[in-house]
Amino acid sequence: MAGASEDVHPQKAFGWAARDSSGVLSPFNFSRRATGEQDVTFKVLYVGICHSDLHYIKNEWGSSDFISANYPAVPGHEIVGVVTEVGMKVQKFKVGYKVGVGCMVGSCRSCDNCGKNLENYCPKMLLTYGSTYYDGTNTYGGYSDIMVVDEHFAVHIPENMALDATAPLLCAGITVYSPLRYYGLDKPGLHVGVVGLGGLGHMAVKFAKALGTKVTVISTSANKKDEAVKRLGADFFLVSRDPEQMQAATGTLDGIIDTVSAPHPLLPLISLLKTEGKLITVGAPDKPLELPVFPLIMGRKMVGGSGIGGMMETQEMIDFAAKHDIKADIEVIPMDYVNTAMERLHKADVSYRFVIDIGNTLKAT
Amino acid sequence: MAGASEDVHPQKAFGWAARDSSGVLSPFNFSRRATGEQDVTFKVLYVGICHSDLHYIKNEWGSSDFISANYPAVPGHEIVGVVTEVGMKVQKFKVGYKVGVGCMVGSCRSCDNCGKNLENYCPKMLLTYGSTYYDGTNTYGGYSDIMVVDEHFAVHIPENMALDATAPLLCAGITVYSPLRYYGLDKPGLHVGVVGLGGLGHMAVKFAKALGTKVTVISTSANKKDEAVKRLGADFFLVSRDPEQMQAATGTLDGIIDTVSAPHPLLPLISLLKTEGKLITVGAPDKPLELPVFPLIMGRKMVGGSGIGGMMETQEMIDFAAKHDIKADIEVIPMDYVNTAMERLHKADVSYRFVIDIGNTLKAT
Repeated sequence: MAGASEDVHPQKAFGWAARDSSGVLSPFNFSRRATGEQDVTFKVLYVGICHSDLHYIKNEWGSSDFISANYPAVPGHEIVGVVTEVGMKVQKFKVGYKVGVGCMVGSCRSCDNCGKNLENYCPKMLLTYGSTYYDGTNTYGGYSDIMVVDEHFAVHIPENMALDATAPLLCAGITVYSPLRYYGLDKPGLHVGVVGLGGLGHMAVKFAKALGTKVTVISTSANKKDEAVKRLGADFFLVSRDPEQMQAATGTLDGIIDTVSAPHPLLPLISLLKTEGKLITVGAPDKPLELPVFPLIMGRKMVGGSGIGGMMETQEMIDFAAKHDIKADIEVIPMDYVNTAMERLHKADVSYRFVIDIGNTLKAT
Repeated sequence: MAGASEDVHPQKAFGWAARDSSGVLSPFNFSRRATGEQDVTFKVLYVGICHSDLHYIKNEWGSSDFISANYPAVPGHEIVGVVTEVGMKVQKFKVGYKVGVGCMVGSCRSCDNCGKNLENYCPKMLLTYGSTYYDGTNTYGGYSDIMVVDEHFAVHIPENMALDATAPLLCAGITVYSPLRYYGLDKPGLHVGVVGLGGLGHMAVKFAKALGTKVTVISTSANKKDEAVKRLGADFFLVSRDPEQMQAATGTLDGIIDTVSAPHPLLPLISLLKTEGKLITVGAPDKPLELPVFPLIMGRKMVGGSGIGGMMETQEMIDFAAKHDIKADIEVIPMDYVNTAMERLHKADVSYRFVIDIGNTLKAT
């Protein structure tokens, strides 16, 4: 697979890349394609650090079918910026518009899923980084000064939104918003559980509350209770390691958004569900989980998955967030702090998302 | 818990019971309650032998929360008969009506689930055998000459139905009909898989075909192909142990009814599903299955459970079967063959359901 070194494409670009599975990021000169008829080119302002970025640069998914690192590897798929050039046929954007790009930059546009605005489930979906684009070059993510993207895979960011705190919505936001909608956990009166209070979990609490549901946060850490209830607005808090608390909450939840990617027992979560309750996994454990079948049968319950969202729904999520003033809780960092940030992320030492201030701190060398 | 020996209740009853976990059945004199205001008493004509009966009489579920055997244990929950007496307030039945009773004979009638005609998911649901009835006595199943049941838990069997081949619908039929309906696998144009071609599986093929879907049977046994396609009317047949066949069918099914109760891998089945496909388990493995999460996420797929059906839906299922001439494929046996039948059932040596001819072969001793 061809890289996109400085000479491959006409637009010079600059970012930070990992060169090997150490995952250490360092400055990297490369290039982006010219602005095509349906492309927008934009100056990147902010990019969120998703845990997937860390997996990618260390090639920790290399053994799976999902994505293996192509070094040099430029991560970043929670990207906001400002449009600097638009192709002749571009309809949604003009120069100066604020724009967001998430996890994908291409799909076949002709399969059943694409026809249903589910580009995220297109078998030929192209990831924002680590995929091979139609021109044969590797896709590079948003830890970089500019991006070029087909306008179909960009969303419009309303002017009233804080750009730094909006960046994480492009992955973490849509990842939890889409299942709340698809699985019908989006109606006032319903009671939704959120397992894990990290980057995904804190967004799930905010969206679920804005959708009008009652929210219970379920966490292994008792010390997150104040944070969950007082600051994020959850209604209840359960310590998953406390059998009495869990027992008392048996059969109370209509659905659960499970954001935990480490292996964990499902039975205690299934027990929290009402009849016809839905346990939705959006974390991606790399090993199979144990599924007890009898509890599913005895309550017509289900365990479902969900992965990001289609472009139409991503725009809907952004517009919903703008209307309800939903932002990620972030720690803004300069570009040259990124390796330290990765170490802290590995230790879950962040509340709740690092966002790199690309616009002000990424300096070409 | 009090048994219901000959003297406990006013109506003398006679059946076959297991006395211990050997599971051997032998003649048993006991009694049934008087016909209450809302009860019907009926003469049992036929009773199907469900695999659950075998588990129950051997107390193989004793270690689970589900049901442990109360010896003497009279099994049988696929029961049809003819009404001999009705209580003063009975509305649905008259003497001479054909009647069916399935897996349950009571529920609280006041919880959310009961209010939604989902008595089968009521936390206080009473099983046809092995439960403690409101009067404190053990419930005895249909391997017996008469039954007394609250009319709410009996369905009307239309006159045009063959009573012997209808008996298995009361458990096997509703067990597969309900998930086809609830999970939306009931529309022409959809493609439904059926895993396992036994008592449940052969009913799933018949109902799914009658609902207008395309049906693929998935089995470990290549030699069931002719049976599945030529006799039962399935459209396609997959040998689950043939990787090439399974690979070629990747992403083709809208849903799967998985009737297998032995531990088995889910990943090959999940791979057969389209985006948003549903794998529904109705067999009840007593050990957890391995659930690979990534494939669920990448296609917004789900694994759901379903257990029998509510009384309204059970009547709907019977009426649907009458309209579409759906019957179980059965081997009718005399009462005194039951222990041999249990041995054959244990070896899966039956196509597809034993039905005991109670009316003609159960003789009081």
